Amino acid sequence: MTLEAMTLAHPIVATHQGILDDATEALVARRFYTRYPEVPSTRVYGENAAADGLAAYLAHLDGTYAGLLSQPTDGTFVGCEVSPYGPTLGVRYPRLDLDAALPAALDAMTAWRDAGARVRAAVCVEIIERLHARSHEMGNAVMHTSGQSFIMAFQAGGPHAQDRALEAVAAALLEQERVPESVVWEKPGRDAPIRMQKDYRIVPRGVAMMVGCNTFPTWNGYPGLFASLATGNPVVVKPHPRAILPLAITVDVARTVLVENGFDAALVQLAPENDGEGLAKTLAERPEVKIIDYTGGPTFGAWLESYGAQHGKLVYTEKAGINTVVVDSTDNLRGMLFNLAFSFSLYTGQMCTAPQNVYVPEQVSTDEGVLSFDEFADRLAAAITKLTADDAKAIEVTGAVVNPQVRANSAAHQGIADEVGGRVVLASREVKHPAYPDAVCRTPGLVAVDAADQVVYCKEWFGPVAFLIRTASTAQSLELFTATILEHGAMTAAVYSTDEEILDDARDAAAEAGVNLSENLTQGIFVNQAAAFSDYHGTGANPAANASYTDAAFVAGRFRVVTSRRHV
Amino acid sequence: MTLEAMTLAHPIVATHQGILDDATEALVARRFYTRYPEVPSTRVYGENAAADGLAAYLAHLDGTYAGLLSQPTDGTFVGCEVSPYGPTLGVRYPRLDLDAALPAALDAMTAWRDAGARVRAAVCVEIIERLHARSHEMGNAVMHTSGQSFIMAFQAGGPHAQDRALEAVAAALLEQERVPESVVWEKPGRDAPIRMQKDYRIVPRGVAMMVGCNTFPTWNGYPGLFASLATGNPVVVKPHPRAILPLAITVDVARTVLVENGFDAALVQLAPENDGEGLAKTLAERPEVKIIDYTGGPTFGAWLESYGAQHGKLVYTEKAGINTVVVDSTDNLRGMLFNLAFSFSLYTGQMCTAPQNVYVPEQVSTDEGVLSFDEFADRLAAAITKLTADDAKAIEVTGAVVNPQVRANSAAHQGIADEVGGRVVLASREVKHPAYPDAVCRTPGLVAVDAADQVVYCKEWFGPVAFLIRTASTAQSLELFTATILEHGAMTAAVYSTDEEILDDARDAAAEAGVNLSENLTQGIFVNQAAAFSDYHGTGANPAANASYTDAAFVAGRFRVVTSRRHV
Repeated sequence: MTLEAMTLAHPIVATHQGILDDATEALVARRFYTRYPEVPSTRVYGENAAADGLAAYLAHLDGTYAGLLSQPTDGTFVGCEVSPYGPTLGVRYPRLDLDAALPAALDAMTAWRDAGARVRAAVCVEIIERLHARSHEMGNAVMHTSGQSFIMAFQAGGPHAQDRALEAVAAALLEQERVPESVVWEKPGRDAPIRMQKDYRIVPRGVAMMVGCNTFPTWNGYPGLFASLATGNPVVVKPHPRAILPLAITVDVARTVLVENGFDAALVQLAPENDGEGLAKTLAERPEVKIIDYTGGPTFGAWLESYGAQHGKLVYTEKAGINTVVVDSTDNLRGMLFNLAFSFSLYTGQMCTAPQNVYVPEQVSTDEGVLSFDEFADRLAAAITKLTADDAKAIEVTGAVVNPQVRANSAAHQGIADEVGGRVVLASREVKHPAYPDAVCRTPGLVAVDAADQVVYCKEWFGPVAFLIRTASTAQSLELFTATILEHGAMTAAVYSTDEEILDDARDAAAEAGVNLSENLTQGIFVNQAAAFSDYHGTGANPAANASYTDAAFVAGRFRVVTSRRHV
Repeated sequence: MTLEAMTLAHPIVATHQGILDDATEALVARRFYTRYPEVPSTRVYGENAAADGLAAYLAHLDGTYAGLLSQPTDGTFVGCEVSPYGPTLGVRYPRLDLDAALPAALDAMTAWRDAGARVRAAVCVEIIERLHARSHEMGNAVMHTSGQSFIMAFQAGGPHAQDRALEAVAAALLEQERVPESVVWEKPGRDAPIRMQKDYRIVPRGVAMMVGCNTFPTWNGYPGLFASLATGNPVVVKPHPRAILPLAITVDVARTVLVENGFDAALVQLAPENDGEGLAKTLAERPEVKIIDYTGGPTFGAWLESYGAQHGKLVYTEKAGINTVVVDSTDNLRGMLFNLAFSFSLYTGQMCTAPQNVYVPEQVSTDEGVLSFDEFADRLAAAITKLTADDAKAIEVTGAVVNPQVRANSAAHQGIADEVGGRVVLASREVKHPAYPDAVCRTPGLVAVDAADQVVYCKEWFGPVAFLIRTASTAQSLELFTATILEHGAMTAAVYSTDEEILDDARDAAAEAGVNLSENLTQGIFVNQAAAFSDYHGTGANPAANASYTDAAFVAGRFRVVTSRRHV
């Protein structure tokens, strides 16, 4: 049976043809496109969706995750998740038996490879559609592992992650279909032409490992997971020990859909672990593992990159950076301050895209007059204070603090200021959560420092720590912007200026630093946000990440082309 | 000035639009396409082309390469090239002053980046066209550095390399133009839509280094050189100390064309060295160098891959492998034997695509009856003997032996046979070159060994060494084929069988091993050959190479996309 015939024969291809057409067309055009509505309204999701989703989430707690018992296991269980809001989840996940699981994944690969790119893409779409139907359940699972507020957990963990997944599937499909299946090559000859048939076969690399992170287990995990799967590679999902449930649900859904469509469940497996077991390293060292997607700390990320290169493994990483804002001038001070205040407060600065460093010159020209550095600092502090004044409203923005490291950072402001003779412009405030007394919730704190104080601001302070950095001029700000990002990396950057020349300089500085730039955001778009199908997440051009969601380079290496040629 | 305006304004774009249209269309279709005629006939190249090309080559000898004196240099010279045919070249190349050259390259990069993908592609085409006009000169230069016969040096070093260069430019252009320059993103809102303009800017990685090899300085070098240059990266060309001249001519031409078109010559620079100076390592360690293309030995290649990964550099390598043939059966024994004999003899087995290992079962069914393993071996030996019987004709196929290592391999057959109790089926014969008495020319030698003797046949014996490996059956041959290539790598593979099922198994084995397969070649196409625009050279799917000429993965990572977005 030819690949084409197989493709035509599988009913899932026709089912999801329309979605794939829309998604690939949107990706090529990079226009606005979303398949999965971000507002959890009853009108879209149904009257009972919220209650049903919560019930489904609660049903997981304090029990064995039965949907994964079909995986090869040694009979033991792991699971030590505690919600940043307080409650212990108590979910027990079967431990994956790697010595059985990895060969099973390789065994499953051949039929998946031979199914062809279009069948794989359609099966991936079906997985995403099923995940979408469980968005409220996922929202609760992400909320209680990441500490995000429910609305954010729903959006980022549900529809936004699903859009990113669909984007990766579309990118993978486009890339594979750029290679013709077969051609007749005809070289003019002295007498007759030489004719050869050349068949091009898409082959996967081997087993892919996706290492999930604590803060965005699905949003950061889906691009790699679906890019690998759609290009023919079986995937072992290694979740963060504190954020297993969202990826357990994901793997469970994927396995169900695969089996329903005639494929082996071993194509997607969950390898959960308890804190400190080092399973990602163990898996990285397995010879079957050929692709690694990783979001997490820079030390282990750098080890993965180096080890992978030595052993012929592809490694895509997102590590850490110092996201930067350059303030020059504005014609909408209130809009700018609110926008920045929200960006700092959202999920307590625990987004890899949250700003940390703000370069501010001695004088900031605004529609409310010229502000000195200190006046600007105080106005920004006031905007944050106002945004987070009401505890019940504040926690809907900040969510909860995810882990002890971020809790330590939350209390670090005075120490940082003392170290370099800076000023705590705004102290981080503890917010009482009305429903979860054990939740640790914080507002952002601001420390004013000098441009020379790189010792404190040139590292990532994950969480509610931001720096206002006094510079002599915007020109100096832009110089520091480029130099510090080239050295330390950044996922995002922003600039505020009313001067077209300075905006142009900022664009050049961003191109030089290899960072995506948002200009004069004063409305409902924030520097933290990256929309699937249009915004690249990261550039891969600075030390923060070697990959970008989702460019061609993110998918093109995940498969290889093997040719067979013969005379005809 | 917008990028679009700059593109339109540069006359070179219109000049080469047609070539780029043809080349990109051919690459997408992977159909037969060549722009540069491979036959050095007077009808195509003109009456005086051969004489003029030879004269131009001779004019380089025993003197300073003046065309490169515009490069930054410390005033000293290098150059120790000796033709494998005997004569010393005596060309003196100015040594590149890296501390001046690398900053100059970075300075040149900005204008090159801002010129846009289409201007860069057109300038690259102009460079290739100028190189084409010097194909006869290049043929002589490649002949006397690689040891190829003139006709082969002309083809592989001239038009075939130029086609590969054009292919890389086309691939790079296609990839960059997949990213729109600017879009308006419109998100439906409750009241009015949110509209943002997003500008996507192609940015280069940094300085690229291309490390040339001794045997195919241009053919193996041009894909990386032109892929990097076309994506905006300045290139430092580090030729093999024994094959500088072909790349000196290349760099000279490139610099001339760049300056003529308003760009800085520092975008392409030559960094020549004498044997043993270790300049490639020095360059790899320079922080400015962000991309490395390498063809050469596996030890240094592996170091580059590992070092590169640790320091955020992209590394594309082609190292070593054991190219493999599976013989099962044939309906054209004479055609098959001639085809194999030619593949072994061509350039004395010094192509990275030349076969080395031939798996042969106890019985080979042919149109001349069933042959035993030993009968088959003797028939292949006879075919090689016949092909190379006449010295004057033989050296047109074999060329000369490139270096002392290959000379040592040429004499290794009996020792190899003795080590494992094998049989020298055909001794390598010294061929006298009629014109160059000091040339070392050899015919291929064959050693018959057993499938168990992996100790000798599972390493690369670069040069005129081939193994006939006795297996119990074709099934065992295919098992060994996959296992040995997965472990040791291969650039090419071939199979001979009249059995469709076995051919199908061979295709599966090749897909599993990640190697391109030629089936039943008995006519004028040889397993060693890979045609630009249609055949991928290497797959990147086994240890022989991590890259493939020219797939999307070869170009997609050489640039990054930086977005700037703002409300409109």
